[in-house]
Amino acid sequence: MNPAPTGSPADCKAWGQLAHHAEGWRAVHLSELFATDVARSVQFVVEAPASLPGLRYDYSRQRVGAMTLRLLANLAAERGLPAWRDALLSGQPVNNTENRAAWHTALRAGSSAPAEVRETLQRVKNIASKIRSEKKFKRVINLGTGGSDLGPRLLADALGDNTLDVRFVSNVDPKDLGRAIEGADPATTLFIVASKTFTTQETLSNALAAKAWLQGKNHFYAITANQAEASKFGVLEVLPVWDWVNGRFSVWSAVGLAAACAMGFERFEEFLAGGHDMDTHFSTANAEKNVPVLMALIGVWNTNFLGAATHAVLPYSNALRLLPAYLQQLEMESNGKRVDREGRAIDYATAPVVWGTEGTASQHSFHQLLHQGTQTIPADFIDVSASEVLSANARAQSEALAFGTTDPSVPPHKQYPGNRPSSTIEFEKLDARNLGRLIALYEHKVFTQGVIWNINSFDQWGVELGKELAKKILTKGK
Amino acid sequence: MNPAPTGSPADCKAWGQLAHHAEGWRAVHLSELFATDVARSVQFVVEAPASLPGLRYDYSRQRVGAMTLRLLANLAAERGLPAWRDALLSGQPVNNTENRAAWHTALRAGSSAPAEVRETLQRVKNIASKIRSEKKFKRVINLGTGGSDLGPRLLADALGDNTLDVRFVSNVDPKDLGRAIEGADPATTLFIVASKTFTTQETLSNALAAKAWLQGKNHFYAITANQAEASKFGVLEVLPVWDWVNGRFSVWSAVGLAAACAMGFERFEEFLAGGHDMDTHFSTANAEKNVPVLMALIGVWNTNFLGAATHAVLPYSNALRLLPAYLQQLEMESNGKRVDREGRAIDYATAPVVWGTEGTASQHSFHQLLHQGTQTIPADFIDVSASEVLSANARAQSEALAFGTTDPSVPPHKQYPGNRPSSTIEFEKLDARNLGRLIALYEHKVFTQGVIWNINSFDQWGVELGKELAKKILTKGK
Repeated sequence: MNPAPTGSPADCKAWGQLAHHAEGWRAVHLSELFATDVARSVQFVVEAPASLPGLRYDYSRQRVGAMTLRLLANLAAERGLPAWRDALLSGQPVNNTENRAAWHTALRAGSSAPAEVRETLQRVKNIASKIRSEKKFKRVINLGTGGSDLGPRLLADALGDNTLDVRFVSNVDPKDLGRAIEGADPATTLFIVASKTFTTQETLSNALAAKAWLQGKNHFYAITANQAEASKFGVLEVLPVWDWVNGRFSVWSAVGLAAACAMGFERFEEFLAGGHDMDTHFSTANAEKNVPVLMALIGVWNTNFLGAATHAVLPYSNALRLLPAYLQQLEMESNGKRVDREGRAIDYATAPVVWGTEGTASQHSFHQLLHQGTQTIPADFIDVSASEVLSANARAQSEALAFGTTDPSVPPHKQYPGNRPSSTIEFEKLDARNLGRLIALYEHKVFTQGVIWNINSFDQWGVELGKELAKKILTKGK
Repeated sequence: MNPAPTGSPADCKAWGQLAHHAEGWRAVHLSELFATDVARSVQFVVEAPASLPGLRYDYSRQRVGAMTLRLLANLAAERGLPAWRDALLSGQPVNNTENRAAWHTALRAGSSAPAEVRETLQRVKNIASKIRSEKKFKRVINLGTGGSDLGPRLLADALGDNTLDVRFVSNVDPKDLGRAIEGADPATTLFIVASKTFTTQETLSNALAAKAWLQGKNHFYAITANQAEASKFGVLEVLPVWDWVNGRFSVWSAVGLAAACAMGFERFEEFLAGGHDMDTHFSTANAEKNVPVLMALIGVWNTNFLGAATHAVLPYSNALRLLPAYLQQLEMESNGKRVDREGRAIDYATAPVVWGTEGTASQHSFHQLLHQGTQTIPADFIDVSASEVLSANARAQSEALAFGTTDPSVPPHKQYPGNRPSSTIEFEKLDARNLGRLIALYEHKVFTQGVIWNINSFDQWGVELGKELAKKILTKGK
């Protein structure tokens, strides 16, 4: 059973207190905070919490104080976060509009995962290992879009080795498939068709084009909940996903097959273990040291009380260049909602626009606006210690945003106002386990924010109308 | 000479009128507008203006009426737009903090371009044609960042053929160069080092690593204003850029060499011609049919009067998948400013956050938030007629955003509020000429907004502090 409805967060005692508390923050500058409180850079850091060695979360450059955090924690408690968390982790139907669980945590539960999960994972292992060792196929092309694309694409790009040439096609534009098959030989090219419904227009249209290109060869695996349609299409094997796996949380399922092909099954399993580490942390750590909860609460503070409209994600790592695109779907499709769980129109902000680019490339593109634009944009710096120069740059940007310039004799166009909040998420290295931790960290952040905002983070009714209208336009045109 | 200072836009008569006018718009829904005015879908469209055959700009689904446009045009006039436009196009020092011109339009002026421009273009032609025909090099790797990367990268990705394998490295993370040289042979790999100053940390660090990898071979061309440093480094040839070419407007200069290698010089020349088409249009079309001016004014309306914090760019074309990243730099680095031309702190919004992804992939990622999120996000749909399905989807999304759902019996989570503004920029096809038109369109939009906001769109002082701090952190660490 899900927790009982709790109404609007704006009716919570802590919400009103936070609104009042925020008034006092308007005149406070991060420079003063650091000048008057030497403990700040220790107090507002979570370092190597239980089950997450090598993780450091530094939120000292956020515009928060001890009282802010206390009130935010009260808000989480008033919203019933522990009960919701238990409902999520135990597979209750937290997706109320579809009466489904969102039990992606079960996919990474290792030996305690449900039998069907363990069996399917064994099949992913067999297929990926065979494809990687046999060398029959040189190229593997994943056909999928949204959650059937962004996750495996990120993993393969970040951690793929060169055993196979693994590519991803998500757009219905024929150029996308055209690029992927460029220079390939049908005899040595394998396709993975990933579509939960096996009716996704983009994916099916690309699968049909791939079939024509293969000229009769059945070089297809399917990952779907619609076994019947996949069999009709004609594939070597169908791997299941289940209705309790939402697309944007499906990288942990057989949807990860292309990633397992790219990086090897062993690393894919480490990725799953990393996700499980974060689940353990999320479910056991105290609120004040619970990193996904802190990230969620600070996001709520920035969005609902300090008025931020967007949130920048800046991974200082070329390996993580696709992370912003991944998080765009995760955060904006999950929490870009305007009615609450009880169907009432909401009068407070939900998900901000999430955007970003790999650092240091980002510095030569839009950091001008981060430092000297007219709006304040909270940022997550992600530092995976890829190099000393990258870490120094992430640190420098975060300090420049927070502290700005103080010399009044500098001409105005060279001045930086500072007081622009950011956090830094540090890992001692980027490997599969840490990538699993990182993604699960954002997942639980998103879920926690959904609980605070009283919305269902696991449906996506906002994508239906466009599909219907496109169909109508295409039919009319014929 | 630049036009005389004109003070704050907020002091303009039209600004106050627009603020008042915007009050009346709060209660108006796009559905009503279309229901009550059948002419709307003709009136608010610019179709095939002079010198721009095949372009259609449809802004009927923006929240504007005839009076809005009149007031916006008045604002542009009060801000002295024609005089500023003339100053830009005639190479006056419109970049006042650096006392420089921003004369990128001269780079695409064809036979009327300055002699040094024509000579350099001839050298680009010779080099690109030689590299493409000789087949000595199989791979060409561009080392540059920001403006020395995003422009040629976009062109090569959109229009490159397969004559050469042209790649781009912008990050100081060694993994970026590592990916680019993967599988390459030093004997057949050429590097282009693009850095205006030839001191950019990322680019120089990658150039040194490339030099080591080449083991003594001089396979380098340089594009820089610092001939001395480039010669010291050791290159085959140095192509110049000039101080009047700002980095984010430099794709039209020799910085485009990598693009010319990827798509052929003839197409690069068509790209330049397309940019020139747009210059002619910008300088001659009446305000009410001037597409870059309309785009700029509608952006100002959305940002300063309807409160939009971000702007989405949605190209329905896989070939244009890098356009959002390109426009992020162009718009946010140009107009992410907080002091005006006279050095006064600004109390109105300047550049919004620009973000986006290729459609239809975007629909399966963040469109949920566009349709049902709590903030209104103006969008540009870009339709280059890549396929019937893509055009239908772009159209459907735009209609769903504007009109939403109207059946009150539908459950709340399936309702769409609509009234979310967007424009559609249509080209009859994507070729080099139209890509030149498209990029120059956004350039002049950005410049026009800079004039309205009384800011210098051509400096970027906001990137300096981070560089200094990073240097300090790195030195301290040693």
